[in-house]
Amino acid sequence: MDRNIARLRNRLDGLGVSLRPHLKTAKSVEVARCVMNSPEGPAMVSTLKEAEQFAAAGVRDIIYAVGITPAKLARVAQLLEGGVDLAVILDTVEQARAVAEVSRQTGVRIPALIEIDCDGHRSGVRPTNQVQLVEIGQALAAGAELRGVLTHAGDSYRGGGAEALQHCAEVERLAVVDAARILQHAGLPCPVVSVGSTPTAHHATDLMGVTEVRAGVFVFFDLVMAGIGVCQVDDIALSVLATVIGHQREKGWIVTDGGWMALSRDRGTSKQTVDQGYGLVCDVNGTPYPDIIVADANQEHGILAARAGSNARLPDLAVGDRVRLLPNHACATAAQHGSYNVVRGSSHVVEAHWTRFGGW
Amino acid sequence: MDRNIARLRNRLDGLGVSLRPHLKTAKSVEVARCVMNSPEGPAMVSTLKEAEQFAAAGVRDIIYAVGITPAKLARVAQLLEGGVDLAVILDTVEQARAVAEVSRQTGVRIPALIEIDCDGHRSGVRPTNQVQLVEIGQALAAGAELRGVLTHAGDSYRGGGAEALQHCAEVERLAVVDAARILQHAGLPCPVVSVGSTPTAHHATDLMGVTEVRAGVFVFFDLVMAGIGVCQVDDIALSVLATVIGHQREKGWIVTDGGWMALSRDRGTSKQTVDQGYGLVCDVNGTPYPDIIVADANQEHGILAARAGSNARLPDLAVGDRVRLLPNHACATAAQHGSYNVVRGSSHVVEAHWTRFGGW
Repeated sequence: MDRNIARLRNRLDGLGVSLRPHLKTAKSVEVARCVMNSPEGPAMVSTLKEAEQFAAAGVRDIIYAVGITPAKLARVAQLLEGGVDLAVILDTVEQARAVAEVSRQTGVRIPALIEIDCDGHRSGVRPTNQVQLVEIGQALAAGAELRGVLTHAGDSYRGGGAEALQHCAEVERLAVVDAARILQHAGLPCPVVSVGSTPTAHHATDLMGVTEVRAGVFVFFDLVMAGIGVCQVDDIALSVLATVIGHQREKGWIVTDGGWMALSRDRGTSKQTVDQGYGLVCDVNGTPYPDIIVADANQEHGILAARAGSNARLPDLAVGDRVRLLPNHACATAAQHGSYNVVRGSSHVVEAHWTRFGGW
Repeated sequence: MDRNIARLRNRLDGLGVSLRPHLKTAKSVEVARCVMNSPEGPAMVSTLKEAEQFAAAGVRDIIYAVGITPAKLARVAQLLEGGVDLAVILDTVEQARAVAEVSRQTGVRIPALIEIDCDGHRSGVRPTNQVQLVEIGQALAAGAELRGVLTHAGDSYRGGGAEALQHCAEVERLAVVDAARILQHAGLPCPVVSVGSTPTAHHATDLMGVTEVRAGVFVFFDLVMAGIGVCQVDDIALSVLATVIGHQREKGWIVTDGGWMALSRDRGTSKQTVDQGYGLVCDVNGTPYPDIIVADANQEHGILAARAGSNARLPDLAVGDRVRLLPNHACATAAQHGSYNVVRGSSHVVEAHWTRFGGW
């Protein structure tokens, strides 16, 4: 984890842009403190619960990165009144009006960024939609604080090689730089120009006009990121320990107590070139057994087998032996657990337990 | 939930067999008390954490239904010493020897059931493997307590219609009845003959020789169970409330804040006749919008759209409006939440909050 954090930090330092880590991956105060520039942030969160928990731990500069709804604004205003600079995001005039209205009612100018859709992946205003952008900006300015623009190149998770990811990063940059220019031409402020995804953060070569980069999963990495070439398998800093509970030798199965409850149901590698099943199987020190994956999972059972098409031999493991499973998707796997057992390198000594939280 | 519990209870009463509910679905003391015959059980669990939590709540008759490993036997012995009748399951001679050895060391005869493989789904000894069965039984009898045999027709989740499920139930019954007979012929005891899965529990017509039926997901039901005809959509007693956060109208999308963190990554209906995406979309009262599903999900974003091939129109929902999402797999979705908001019928009044726990 330390190496992954240093790698992205060095990269962004070289590009002259600051990092706003997305804390939704780890949901842990200890991890947040390892990855943020300072104990006060900046940071990004995916739920108001995260905003509240990290605020309670001293974080003061937060963006809540899921489109705001009117019913959530009371909790936003409360954090702002408590001295936390919590910005919201939105992509409709209706939301902008609600944010401005609550700002006027509470006397707290809620900071808001306009979400820009750079690749058709999810939410946001297309940067070509100048009319809507300016209308949202003006609605916000009438009471709230227009903080800037923000986008997320969700399509970068599809990979496609280094060149494709460089292109994604440039598309992401251009979308917000264009949007910022439109707002500024309309006489509106746009101090923050925010981009981010782990693949684009690791492939952008030019971030001119961008003020900050957001990324989350780079802290732990996972098999999906390895599959698109953003990290090596050896960089994956999150794993699940499971214990062998039986064999079905004639089928080529080893059965463990690491099922989807421990790994999550995420099958993010299923559409990649190499399908890792529910996870890649390593010995207890973290060295992968070639082509041995968690081929299937029930709630508390994982079936280890050779990857389809491979003639890899199963490792010689007895009931009670342990294996280390690397996850498809760190955010999803970590969410199945209440805490992290912190080890150094391939050591088995647990140096600390870092709690994580869930909920909304 | 009350109706679902009454339905299975009435059915099993008619067949003259007792119910051992699997508490892994709800992981809640309050739900457990609704579904168990008595506050003391019987009950089934999928982790030692569940055994410990339910024991602390007064449950005294528990089977831990994941193959035991030597390292877990200390916790098992501790519960037994505390007056909880906790039985383990296993399918190898090595496990049986370890259980007998710890029984001798601690002076606590650990009850153990031999897991039988009725359908090749996962773990267990084939009932045709008489030599292995007797060897395990004898290894157990040398110190531990051979409590009986147990099987789970995991293949029943594939459905195939009422006749196929009746057949699954009969295969499940025969597997353990045969295994019990083999043990008894070898002079070994076999007081418990246990079968169970929600689909077979609802389709068995004859349970001769069986002493108990286990089932879990029947408490809440879900879209997978509806897809194989074990329940109606209207029986599903677990849902996730989400709020509309935006639209991508030209794509036919409504975006909500109910993503996979709230629903789980489970895509259990993806191989069924009707693929429900990440969940079926209902109005806030629980009435489904025909053919509108959670077509895609990110961590905290759900994309509502018409099912592929349908020309259903999206409901007219504004930012801030709420929808109720029915899950593919109740066990997986419930696991994403720390508590249940308990409502009666389609009422919106939350009558209680029932906490649930996770972990191992």
